[in-house]
Formats: sequence, C-alpha cells, structure tokens
Amino acid sequence: MELQMLAKLAPILGAVGFVIAIVIYNVIKAQPVGNARMKEISDAIHSGAMAFLGREYRVLSAFIVLVFFLIFMGMNKETALAFLGGALCSMLCGFIGMKAATRANVRTTEAAREAGQAKALLVSFNGGAVMGLAVASLGLVGVGIAFIIFGNAETAQYINGFAMGASSIALFARVGGGIYTKAADVGADLVGKVEAGIPEDDPRNPGVIADNVGDCVGDTAGMGADIFESYVGSIIATIAIAAAASPALLAKLGSGEAVQSNAMLLPLAMATIGLVFSLIGIGSMKFLKAIDPAKALHYTTFVAAGGFLIAAYFLILAFGLNIGIFWAILAGTLSGVAIGQVTEYYTASSPVARIAEASKTGPATNIIHGLAVGLESCALPVLIICISIFVANYYAGLYGIGIAAVGMLATVGVTMTVDAYGPIADNAGGISEMCGLGPDVRKITDGLDSIGNTTAAIGKGFAIGSAALTALALFSAYATTVGLKAIDLMQPEVVIGLLIGGMLPFFIGALTMTSVGRAAGKMVDEIRRQFREIPGLLEGKPSAKPEPEKCVDISARAALREMVLPGMTAVIAPVLVGFVIGKEALGGMLAGATLAGVMLALMMSNGGGAWDNAKKYIEKGDLDGESKGGEAHKAAVVGDTVGDPFKDTSGPAMNILIKLMSVVSLVIAPLLV
Amino acid sequence: MELQMLAKLAPILGAVGFVIAIVIYNVIKAQPVGNARMKEISDAIHSGAMAFLGREYRVLSAFIVLVFFLIFMGMNKETALAFLGGALCSMLCGFIGMKAATRANVRTTEAAREAGQAKALLVSFNGGAVMGLAVASLGLVGVGIAFIIFGNAETAQYINGFAMGASSIALFARVGGGIYTKAADVGADLVGKVEAGIPEDDPRNPGVIADNVGDCVGDTAGMGADIFESYVGSIIATIAIAAAASPALLAKLGSGEAVQSNAMLLPLAMATIGLVFSLIGIGSMKFLKAIDPAKALHYTTFVAAGGFLIAAYFLILAFGLNIGIFWAILAGTLSGVAIGQVTEYYTASSPVARIAEASKTGPATNIIHGLAVGLESCALPVLIICISIFVANYYAGLYGIGIAAVGMLATVGVTMTVDAYGPIADNAGGISEMCGLGPDVRKITDGLDSIGNTTAAIGKGFAIGSAALTALALFSAYATTVGLKAIDLMQPEVVIGLLIGGMLPFFIGALTMTSVGRAAGKMVDEIRRQFREIPGLLEGKPSAKPEPEKCVDISARAALREMVLPGMTAVIAPVLVGFVIGKEALGGMLAGATLAGVMLALMMSNGGGAWDNAKKYIEKGDLDGESKGGEAHKAAVVGDTVGDPFKDTSGPAMNILIKLMSVVSLVIAPLLV
Repeated sequence: MELQMLAKLAPILGAVGFVIAIVIYNVIKAQPVGNARMKEISDAIHSGAMAFLGREYRVLSAFIVLVFFLIFMGMNKETALAFLGGALCSMLCGFIGMKAATRANVRTTEAAREAGQAKALLVSFNGGAVMGLAVASLGLVGVGIAFIIFGNAETAQYINGFAMGASSIALFARVGGGIYTKAADVGADLVGKVEAGIPEDDPRNPGVIADNVGDCVGDTAGMGADIFESYVGSIIATIAIAAAASPALLAKLGSGEAVQSNAMLLPLAMATIGLVFSLIGIGSMKFLKAIDPAKALHYTTFVAAGGFLIAAYFLILAFGLNIGIFWAILAGTLSGVAIGQVTEYYTASSPVARIAEASKTGPATNIIHGLAVGLESCALPVLIICISIFVANYYAGLYGIGIAAVGMLATVGVTMTVDAYGPIADNAGGISEMCGLGPDVRKITDGLDSIGNTTAAIGKGFAIGSAALTALALFSAYATTVGLKAIDLMQPEVVIGLLIGGMLPFFIGALTMTSVGRAAGKMVDEIRRQFREIPGLLEGKPSAKPEPEKCVDISARAALREMVLPGMTAVIAPVLVGFVIGKEALGGMLAGATLAGVMLALMMSNGGGAWDNAKKYIEKGDLDGESKGGEAHKAAVVGDTVGDPFKDTSGPAMNILIKLMSVVSLVIAPLLV
Repeated sequence: MELQMLAKLAPILGAVGFVIAIVIYNVIKAQPVGNARMKEISDAIHSGAMAFLGREYRVLSAFIVLVFFLIFMGMNKETALAFLGGALCSMLCGFIGMKAATRANVRTTEAAREAGQAKALLVSFNGGAVMGLAVASLGLVGVGIAFIIFGNAETAQYINGFAMGASSIALFARVGGGIYTKAADVGADLVGKVEAGIPEDDPRNPGVIADNVGDCVGDTAGMGADIFESYVGSIIATIAIAAAASPALLAKLGSGEAVQSNAMLLPLAMATIGLVFSLIGIGSMKFLKAIDPAKALHYTTFVAAGGFLIAAYFLILAFGLNIGIFWAILAGTLSGVAIGQVTEYYTASSPVARIAEASKTGPATNIIHGLAVGLESCALPVLIICISIFVANYYAGLYGIGIAAVGMLATVGVTMTVDAYGPIADNAGGISEMCGLGPDVRKITDGLDSIGNTTAAIGKGFAIGSAALTALALFSAYATTVGLKAIDLMQPEVVIGLLIGGMLPFFIGALTMTSVGRAAGKMVDEIRRQFREIPGLLEGKPSAKPEPEKCVDISARAALREMVLPGMTAVIAPVLVGFVIGKEALGGMLAGATLAGVMLALMMSNGGGAWDNAKKYIEKGDLDGESKGGEAHKAAVVGDTVGDPFKDTSGPAMNILIKLMSVVSLVIAPLLV
C-alpha cells in the first residue's frame, strides 16, 4: 500500500507546478511594456482575446450545465461531478494560458527592442511556459484528486467523466478558436495583402487586431485545450484499461496481488515524474537562451524527455511491474519524436520547394501540389503509429497502447510550452510591425516567429500522434469496459458503424471549412467597406482610424455560432449509434472515426503547413527569379490562404473529435453493458 | 439441374450482345464524317487515342505475363488462366469502346451540323452503347464460361482470378487514362484560357488535341474498365459468398438441396436478364430521341431498370430461393439511384451556387468552399450505403450485400452507355469549335455536352456506390473463403491493418495528384514554348501550325510512367500484409481501404464536379454582376483546374483501388487459410 501513497503526491506536485506557473506569469507581467503605442495595441489584443474567451465560456457554461444534469440523471452524480471538474480545469488552463500569452507578446517585442534576441526568446518562452505548466499541473491535480477518491477497480469508471469534461471544452475551444482566428486571418490577408497590396500586420488594416487576437484564441487557448485533453485522456484511458483488465492482461503486466492497483497508479505516477522533468526542462532555458534559439527550444524538450525516460525505467521496477511496460513507453515517446520529424520534413523541406516551384504555373498547380503533399504526408506517421501499436501491444497488451500514449504526453509541460511560444512570437512580430519599430526589431521577432512556425508544425504532428494513440487507448478502454468479446468487421452492424464513424470527420471538416469560408467572406466585405468609407485610411493619413472592433466582433460572432453544430454532433453521434444500433456498432464507429480523423488531421495540418512555408520560401527569394509580389508569390498566397483553415481549424478539430467521441463512448459504456 | 442450364445461356446471350455492339459500331462508322478539316481533326484524336492504348497495352502485357506466371507458380493454372481471361476481356472492352467513341465524336458533330439535335443525340448515344454493350456482354461471356467450367462450390474459387484480371487492367487504365487526360486538360487550360485568353478547344492551342484524346482515354476507356470491374467483381463476389456459405446463411436463402447451386447461379442469371433489358433500354432511344435529351437519357435507364426488377422478382421465385433476396436487390438498385441524386444535388444545385458566390472573393475562398462541398458530400451517400447494407443483410445475410451490388450493376449495359455518351458529346463540341462550325452547331453540341456533364457526375456517384458495395461483397467473400471466424478490431493487428488500409488511398491520391501536377507543368512549358517559338501561332495566322503531337507525347509518356507505382502498390500491399501480418490484419486492411477510399472518392468526384459547374454557372451569367473573363470567373477557373485531377484522376482511382485490393485478397485467400 505504500506505493498508493504516491497518488497523493500527484495533486500536491500538480499544485506546486501551478504555483510556479503563477509565479512565472507575475514575472512576465513585471517586464517592461514599451511605448504608448505598443501598450495600446497589446491592450487591444488582450481585451479582444479575453472578451472572446468570456463570451465563449458563457456559451459553454450552458452546455456544461445541460450535460451535467443529463449525466447526473442518466448515470450517477460521481461521473457528473468528474465531468464538471474536467470542464472547469480545461477552462482554467485556457484562461491562464491566454492571459499569459497576451501579456508576453508585447513584452517580447519590447525585449527584442531593448535587450536583444536572448531576452526576447526567454520572455516568449516563459509566456508559453505558463500555458505548458497550467496544462500539466491542472491535469495532475484533477486526475490525481479523482484517482484518490475513485481509484479502485470498481469505481474507476467515474474518473472517465473528467476526461469527457476536458474533451467537450476542447472541441468547442478548438473549433471556435479555429474559426475565429482563420476568419480574421483569411479576411485580413485577402483584402490587405492581395487586394490592397499592403504588408501583413499593417496598422491600416482593420482586420489585423482580430488576426492577432485570433492567434491567441486559436493557437494558444485551442491548442492548450487539445493537449490538455490528450494528456488527461491518455492517463484516464490507461487507468480504465487497468481497472477492467482481464487476468491474462494482468499476468502480462506483472505478478503478485498488487499488479492491478499498481498498473492503475502507474500512468498517474508517470505524469507526476513527467511534470518534474518538465520543470527542469523549462528551467534550463535560463542557461540555453544565449545559444541558437531553435536549438535551445529543442534542448529543453530533450532534457525533459531524457530525464523522464530514465526515471520511468526505475519507477516501473519500483512498482514491481514487468519492464516490458517501459518499452511501450519508449515506443510512445520515440514515435512522438519521429512523427514530429516527418512533419518537419513535409512542412520545411523538399515538399515545400515542390509547392513553391508549382506556384510558377499559377494558383491551380500550387493547390494541386499542396493537396498532394498533404495526402502524401499521411503515410509515414501512420506507419509510425502502427509500429508503436505493435511494440506497445507486444510488450504490454492493450495496456501498452494506453501507457505509450502517456509516455508520449508525460513531459507535456515542456512540449506545450514550446507550442505556446509560437503564437506569442508571432504576435510579437505583429506588434512590432504595427508600431513601426523598424527592421532590427522585426528581424529578431521574425527569427523567433519562423522558429515558432516550425515548432508549431512539429507540435501539430505531435498533437495528432498523441490524439491517435489516446483515441486508440480510449477505444480499448471502451471495449474492455463494455465487456465486448470482439468488434467483428464481419458483422454488418460493425461495418455500418465503421462507415458512419469514417464519414463524421469529413462532415465536421465540411462544417468547419464552410464556417471559415463564410466568416472570412464577411470579414472581407467589412474590411473592404472600411477602406472604401473611411477617408484616407488606405493612404495612411494619421487622422484616419480603422475600426478593428467591428472585425473582432465578426470573428467572435461567427466562432460562437458555428462551433455549436460540430460540437453537438461529436457528443450526440456516439450516444445515438450506441443506443440505436448497438455497442458493437459503436466500437466500429470509433475505429472508423479514428481512422478517418487521423488521416484528415495529418493531411490538413501538414498540407497547410507546407503551403504556408512555400509562400515564405518564395518571400525569402529561394525560388529562382521569383520574389514577393510576383506571380508565383501571388499563387503561393492563395495556397497559404487555403491552408489556413486546413491547418488551424479543420485539421486540429479532428484530433479532438476522435478523442471526444471515444471518451463519450467510454462514459456511456456502463449503460451499454 | 434444369436451372443450371441457364448458365450456358449467359455466354450465349453475352455473345449476342457483343455482336449487336459490333453492328452498332458499323452503323456509326457508316455515318457521314463531314468536311476535310473535321476528318483531319477526328483522325488526329482517333490515332492519338489508339496509339496511346497500344502503348498502354504493351506495358500492361508485361505486367499480365508476370502476374500470370506468379499465380501459375504460386497457386494453380486455373486461377492463372481466369486472370488472363479477365485481363483480356477488360482490354478488349477498352479497345472497342474507344474505337467507337473516336468514330462517333466527329459524326455527332456532323449530325448536329446537318441533321439537328435528335440525330446528334442518337449518334453519340449509340457511340456510348458500343462501350456499354461491350462491358455487359464481355462480362457475361467471360464470367459465364468460367462459371460453366468451375461453377461448383469446390472449384468456384478459380473464378476469382477473372475478377483480378479485370481489376488489374482497370487500375492501370483508370490511373493512366486519368493522368493522360488531366495533364492535357490542365496544361491546355492554364496556358490557353488563363494566360493567353483564347477559348477552350481553340485550334491555335497545341494542347487541344491531347485534351480531346484524353477525354476518350480517361473518361471512356478508364470508366469502361472501372465499371467492367465492378460488374464482374460483384457477380464473382456473390458466387464466392454462396460457394463458401455456412449452413446458417444457406438456410436464410431458401430450403432444399439446390439452394447453394442456385444461389451461385443467381448472380449470373441476374446479369443475363439485366443485359436483355439493357438492350431494350438502348433500343428505346430510337423512339425517345425526339424528346428533351436529358429526359430521353433518363428514360432509357428507367426502362431497363424497371423491366429488370420485375423479371428479377419472378426469376428468384423460379429459382426457389427466398424472396428476401429480391429486397436486397431492390435496395441495391434504389441506393444506386439515390446516390446518383445526391451527386446531382452537389454538382448541379445550391452547393454550386455557393462556390460560385465564394469566387467573388477570389480563388482562395473558391477553393475553401469547394473543398468544403466535397467533404460535405460524403455524408449522405455513406448513409445510403449503410441503409442498403442493413436491408440487404437483414433479408439475405452477407449474400444480400453481394447480390445488392449485382442488382445495382445488372443493367450496366445501359448505364454505361449513358456514361460513355458524355465524353463523345464533349469531343463533338471540341471538334465543332476547332473547325469553326459556328454557333448553331456549337449550341447543339454544347447542350448535349452539358447533359453529359450531369450524367457523368451521376455516373461517377453510381460508380462509387457500386464500387463500395462490390468491395464490401468482395470483403465478405474474402472473409468467408479464408474461413475467418471474426475480424476483431480489439486485436491490435487488425487495427494496424485498418490503419495501413486507410492510409493507402491517401497515398495513391498523393501519387496521382502529383503525377498530374508534374505532367501538367511540362505541358504548360511545352505550350508556352510553342506560342513563343512558332511565329504567328497565337495571332492565328493560317501559315502557323501548332505541333499537337508533342503534347500528345508528353501526356502519354507521363501516363505510362506514372501509372506503374500506384498500380503495383495496390497489387503488392494486400499480399504483403496478408503474408507478413496475417489474414485478420488483411481483413482490417480491406475495411480501412474501403472506408477511406469511398470517402476520398466521394469527396474528390463531387468536389471536382461542383467546381466544374460553378465555373459554368458564372459563364452562363447566373452570378450577379459577374461574367466570363471577370475576376470571379478567373477564380472559378482555378477551382475547376484543381477539381480536374480530383474528379477524373485521383477520385476514380479510389474505386478501383479498393476493389483491386479486395480481389487480390480474395484470390490469395486459399493460401492464407
């Protein structure tokens, strides 16, 4: 029983991590803001972002209350309370991370202006660290407390509610944030860059503030909710698999009486040591900041992952569990890295050059090649996932798949930090452009931003890989919990479930793409109107002021309205299929949705990233005889614009869709037995 | 045993149908060709198409010989011979259909010039009928003879080789033809329409001949091979299911000793009566030609389908089989029609207007909305397929799924005719433009062409639906033949198979899109070169002659080179997965490939069709304040160009990919038992 005391350590360490996040936030806030113009713009971004988050959370509250009562009535109060806890923790993460991001952006600009690159890197990195630590520590606190209360084989199913709470918020936040940011981005670019020929982030463009708010809303809050969900989802799925494990599976994990309880505790313990090493990784930036920023960011994650793996090895031994579990964890961690590498290849290497080259013959060939790159980029990550499933299962059965996902996500504190750093650097560049701080500052922020693009692409690959493994773990947990002997593809109802499940990601993709297209259309009309009706705006007369709040409002309204249908579909579909067609069909549906969701997520994220960088490739003058403003560049801007909702709205929505459907199924599993 | 004599009827009636096809071909050839210029152009198209087919078949011969020996050595001579038969029949279909199409095109133009719309409709329809009848009758001859030799439960597995032969040719023909036609189309459009601002099919454009050859190569020969494969695949899968049926399944189909042999014979008998009613449907055009052409085309298929259904009902009774089988057939037929309706909605109705509207804000929003429409269009067809699986299985178990596919395809003689009519009408329009025959002729051919676009879209929906059902039938046949108790998604190797299978359509999609993009790029360079280097070409001086044969050669080379990798992947992947990971994993792979393949096929075909028609919508002046040549139209041309390889290369390749992988699995099934 001594080991079980470790469970108490999880929320305590989580609380410590959270306090550190708050401390870092205050350190950031104490940094200089810069001149009055910088303060004005960053305040506009800050208040726009927080206002949107407030409106979004108000809409979500109604949803949470409704689902809370449905679970309370239809199931039990324990699950309902866990659901509430998961939802609140996710919202709190988003709130804190966003506050930090919108404080860190302008301070990064100021650091670039006054203190140089190293300091700017540190400020933006610390801004990201607040989000990273919030995700890791609140996850530990929440799951830890739930585990202390419900952490035995009979009651562990209540913990699933926590994952569902986190998932529900995540889908709405990701979809809403994604629509917000891309409506603004696409709209601002189409009128500003393409039609009016003014640079990105030009202060004359009334859509620029909305665009910068969108970066925070979508890339920071949305990504945070996504990773938070994967993190708690993978831990909870592994607990659920252990709780419902067959004697054969337990025998594979170790021997002795405590195997089951130890196997249930292990994912939480892994997350706990993961947080410790994340803190070390984050702290190491203090010493690494002076070296090449890209390398510094890489090293922080390597420090954390290396330390974590060594500790994990000894912890598994201490738990008296089979060391095969370590190989599963290693497979998860390595496949996360490998998928990141593949993502980097497709979004920063020869495929990008291919798309840039194709831009010479116009936007159509740019799009054709971009779509081809996106489609092609699915192959290797899927094979990597297959290998890690094979290894994990070989060494530790279905439990191995769950714990592999935990291994991939244990050092989320630092990986999420690097992710959240990107939009801050992006914002910092935007602010320096809007304030006209000149090429020296811009050069630093551009450098940080461009590294941010690569880390964002890798982060997206990582998010997809972890979502796939988490969804498979949740799927296994569902099947074990519901007591299925088999989900047999020779049964037509399973095939029907599979087809319906596979269709849903395409449908959600359609909804979100349409939403962005529609909202961007409105944004275009509004920006065109302002350029037309506000005298002297386009000419840059100081007296002519744009009305950015109107653009902010268009994005916010569209996001709030359009996030409802995809979100509800994801929650209702598994309930409907489970109760109407049956539990086997629901199993088929989860498999189909995971399959199609992972493919579309990879295709959209990587395709979008490749288009984005193809445009930058031409801008940097790497394409023979072409430069910014030329025909090839114009074609590349079209590709980039198409890629925007791909990589930042629809693609990321897939990750959450498959996890949410799996977790809803897991929660209702006891009703289907 | 009396019923079994019907088997002999199948090849005999098939032979009769084939003779009728030859007669129709000769009737077409006897029609007037028009003036010298028309003859010259149509001869160029004819010789270009036949030359390509010759080169393609030479490449394929090597493949066929290789696979023949592999099957001969690894399995048995019966399967190898059946494989050879399937391959040869498919090639013969393509050859005859293409000959007829390239003779009928110019004669349709001439009929429009001299005799008016009714006659032009009849000529082009008859051109299509040669292909339609060749497909239906050669399928019957081939499968019929194979059935006579091997048609009992012990040896029926040899017949599977025939389907594999047909499938192999189909994939190469579809992919090769698809690359050929779209490289030419995209290249010719990009330089001609977009850059030089000359009309489509303008004789100054050296890519126009290649484009018209491509229509025949891709849309006629490729589509023919595709449908031929579905047709024989569905029949053979149903025979295989009956041959390996469990006692429980047989009890569901009827009672008495002859149930199994009758159930094996039924699909062939259905195809036989389907051919009879197809002949009646085709013949009815003689009387229908004077009415509205769109209606006339619809009616011919209704006549055939209605008659077929009535006869099927009584035939099932005569076979002494359970009448539930009829409901399965009805479900298949109706779902084919319903999917066609959905396709028509997405490619001719409000979604098209939405894309056109989005073109006002430029190519990027056009593409975003087009992709959204494509994604959205997956939902309803998948639900329809699910319903038909449910009904078919409810009434006749796994056999029901097979026979539903047969029901959908039995009147292929006439549905294929309507399909093959489209590219002939398209070609006829091209010829009238190139020969400058004036607006009156062009109006007739344009009218026929535009109906052809709708029938082509419906035909593509039908091809996807039938491919999905056929693949599922083949999948069931595989599972029964290999003696699997279950394909259990709770087994990690099945999940691995599922993921690999789901990845393959994305990979093949990437390969084919890249091929088109690359070949189109070369085509653009060549056409630009000719415009630049041939003095007076662009100004239209009579002395300046374009060099179309160079463009034809670029398309042909690209097609032959680029079809190899996708084709080999589809053939090798199931063998590899089956032998290396196992027969359950292979089952999972087929399910994953079918799922992803159907989704991508729907998305690509419907998205492409919608883009095409959005462009036409603007050209017709249906979009407020926009017309041909305006900004919105230019944006729509970009969408159309992207949609081209979607709907005519990658999308159709999916149909065949999933069937081919299933049929290869079915053929190697005895080795995996």
